[in-house]
Amino acid sequence: MPLLNETHDPSLKSWVNSANDGQTDFPIQNLPFGVFRRKGRDESFRGGVAIGDQIVDIAAAVKAGVFSGDALAPAQAATESTLNHLMSLGPQRLSHLRKALSKALQTGATQEVALNACLVPQAHAEYALPARIGDYTDFYTSVHHATNIGKQFRPDNPLLPNYKWVPIGYHGRSSSIGVSGQAFKRPKGQIKPPDADAPVLKPSARLDIELEMGVFVGRANALGEPVPITEAEDHIFGLVLFNDWSARDIQPWEYQPLGPFLAKNFASTVSPWVVTMEALAPFRVPFSHPADDPQPLPYLSSAHNSAHGGLDIHLEALIETPKMRAAQAAPSRFTQTNYRHAYWTAAQMVAHHTVNGCNLQPGDLLGTGTLSGPTLDSACALIELTTGGKNPIQLPNGESRTWLEDGDTVILRGWCEKPGAARIGFGECVGTVLPATTP
Amino acid sequence: MPLLNETHDPSLKSWVNSANDGQTDFPIQNLPFGVFRRKGRDESFRGGVAIGDQIVDIAAAVKAGVFSGDALAPAQAATESTLNHLMSLGPQRLSHLRKALSKALQTGATQEVALNACLVPQAHAEYALPARIGDYTDFYTSVHHATNIGKQFRPDNPLLPNYKWVPIGYHGRSSSIGVSGQAFKRPKGQIKPPDADAPVLKPSARLDIELEMGVFVGRANALGEPVPITEAEDHIFGLVLFNDWSARDIQPWEYQPLGPFLAKNFASTVSPWVVTMEALAPFRVPFSHPADDPQPLPYLSSAHNSAHGGLDIHLEALIETPKMRAAQAAPSRFTQTNYRHAYWTAAQMVAHHTVNGCNLQPGDLLGTGTLSGPTLDSACALIELTTGGKNPIQLPNGESRTWLEDGDTVILRGWCEKPGAARIGFGECVGTVLPATTP
Repeated sequence: MPLLNETHDPSLKSWVNSANDGQTDFPIQNLPFGVFRRKGRDESFRGGVAIGDQIVDIAAAVKAGVFSGDALAPAQAATESTLNHLMSLGPQRLSHLRKALSKALQTGATQEVALNACLVPQAHAEYALPARIGDYTDFYTSVHHATNIGKQFRPDNPLLPNYKWVPIGYHGRSSSIGVSGQAFKRPKGQIKPPDADAPVLKPSARLDIELEMGVFVGRANALGEPVPITEAEDHIFGLVLFNDWSARDIQPWEYQPLGPFLAKNFASTVSPWVVTMEALAPFRVPFSHPADDPQPLPYLSSAHNSAHGGLDIHLEALIETPKMRAAQAAPSRFTQTNYRHAYWTAAQMVAHHTVNGCNLQPGDLLGTGTLSGPTLDSACALIELTTGGKNPIQLPNGESRTWLEDGDTVILRGWCEKPGAARIGFGECVGTVLPATTP
Repeated sequence: MPLLNETHDPSLKSWVNSANDGQTDFPIQNLPFGVFRRKGRDESFRGGVAIGDQIVDIAAAVKAGVFSGDALAPAQAATESTLNHLMSLGPQRLSHLRKALSKALQTGATQEVALNACLVPQAHAEYALPARIGDYTDFYTSVHHATNIGKQFRPDNPLLPNYKWVPIGYHGRSSSIGVSGQAFKRPKGQIKPPDADAPVLKPSARLDIELEMGVFVGRANALGEPVPITEAEDHIFGLVLFNDWSARDIQPWEYQPLGPFLAKNFASTVSPWVVTMEALAPFRVPFSHPADDPQPLPYLSSAHNSAHGGLDIHLEALIETPKMRAAQAAPSRFTQTNYRHAYWTAAQMVAHHTVNGCNLQPGDLLGTGTLSGPTLDSACALIELTTGGKNPIQLPNGESRTWLEDGDTVILRGWCEKPGAARIGFGECVGTVLPATTP
């Protein structure tokens, strides 16, 4: 498939007016998939597509006869209560559905009347996870994050010798991943201050975020069958925003020798709308390692990955403290970065993950790891922004934060924009810290 | 519930004669659950219970009206294609089903004729995973294994300071877990010899086993709700044998700083029959840490765990090489140990895993980690038995093994026996190494 087609035409307009304001995350060029239902109704979760401030209820649209031909099978898959089946179909069949949706939502489309009856305002919706996540793997693809963290955990040895060869990753917890809006209790854990003789069990006092992107796996590979990097993108369905909440005081005591565990698995949050790889096509950018660095081994290298492997996605994190909420003040942005700074691409993550024969399944989630950029103000976790808790960040209302406090809400946002292309957004990934259980 | 009841009576006999020979793994006092179907038939996988050399087809037995009262609902749950629903019901309801099965299978039972028609010979069956495994966590509960491995990876610092405080665990891969009989290709991966400048991609030359037990989670806990250790066993369904195959040359290069990944996630194998906690009741033993060691923090400590937390389960690993197979020679045992040597109990694994609010779900699998005993000949991985590949093990047919070779089959077995109780076995956990894909 060529990267770009008529669905990317920036001049396309929709008969859904809110999709045309140039500011929405969801213009007709985006068409991300999610799982929703109407709030307060006794009805099933089902697949939907965001357009402006509305959702196309795909089940209703299938019933209304909006889809036919090659678009019908993927549309039927998108009526289910998870998108795993849709994800399994692969990019070609997904592209048929995208094309049909693009046509049916365009100004002047003959399907306007039928499809208009299938719209649900996003303001009236609630969301579920886009997929049943079988396995979740978190990578570590920002060399800047790895270096910043390494300095704090291993001052003498910040970036380990394997980093520039191996797309480092580890398995995370699927069961505690929630969709935007997730509120979770501050975790307790064994914490051992450096000067104490013994650990104690107590609530984490160093609760942090990790601003990441999540990659939803599409088509499966069979156990024992590695995915060559030249085919890796055929196994990627799309991307979401992802917050991998972390307890920085639990982590250092537990993480040797087998890696992070309870410091991470109490909660992770994804945004509800999965932006497909096809929607992101206009924002692909060249990808390379610095000339002085080791070049990727052949199984991690392809001409396509070098020419188009990077993704130019602006990312930011904002905080809304209880005081801001009470004062109805706007949330405050405390960092911003871009996914293009990652040291390994999504395709490299897939090729590496499967090189030993490991089987990825539709709906599996691959985290990119914290996407800190090259400068301190583009760091994507408080542990970096505050230099390990030494320098609190100042908020515009006079508050400061070293770590997250009870009641704090963190909002991740992401979007792509450039001249000659429609702006594409990811919506929001929102999570709130509740107090720890007592005692 | 008291630990022992009439289902444990060692004098019970079954009208299924093969259950009464004193040597079977599956006497009437065991009654483990699995998921099976008849080989070569176009039929669904469904729940079954092993008795002697037969399987009780629970779906057929429900249809035949064998179950009633409190046993009916759990029996109906056991007719499904995975045991997740049955597991979710908790130990009390499971106990009703066990009691009904024990009565119906006893010599002289009125249900003999009806139930006899529901038997399928194990020789005619094939198995599926007992449950859809949502998340798999591997622990590290043998202090002997941790010390032996630590000596090789960190000679100056074999046992890390957290080991005796924290039940160390990490997340593993669910998708590549298979049931006994699994054959998997030798994994490839980045391997960097100590004296090389750069890693290369090649098939692992140091393929190993890890003899573990797997703990299937029963009743769920909600996100944010830790399971107190006093209730932890209510969340455990039962135990299986578990082989966590490992590539020892991939592991050292990739595992820092986030833990093992591709060295482990290419395959893991469980035995088909889940032996319930109730069946294991006669083999509970006192549990304690050595007096000189730190005593567990309160959230990891209970009177019940001290009195009954250990499990006296004999374990062994055997190898069948292609030459043995060709010569029709018996597989050769190369190590044996006992689960009672573990440093942390299954209840402590559950209490620790959930103390931060992490939610366990029915069918989740918790590995104990390699269960090496206190002496070198009870080590449960080749990396220990061969001292990191320096001293091959000698096999009785004149062959030797440093690491696994293509075509090798490894068989794990486990059983409990003591005077005054019926012998309870786990069956076998069998896996075979296939050659790596070329190129």
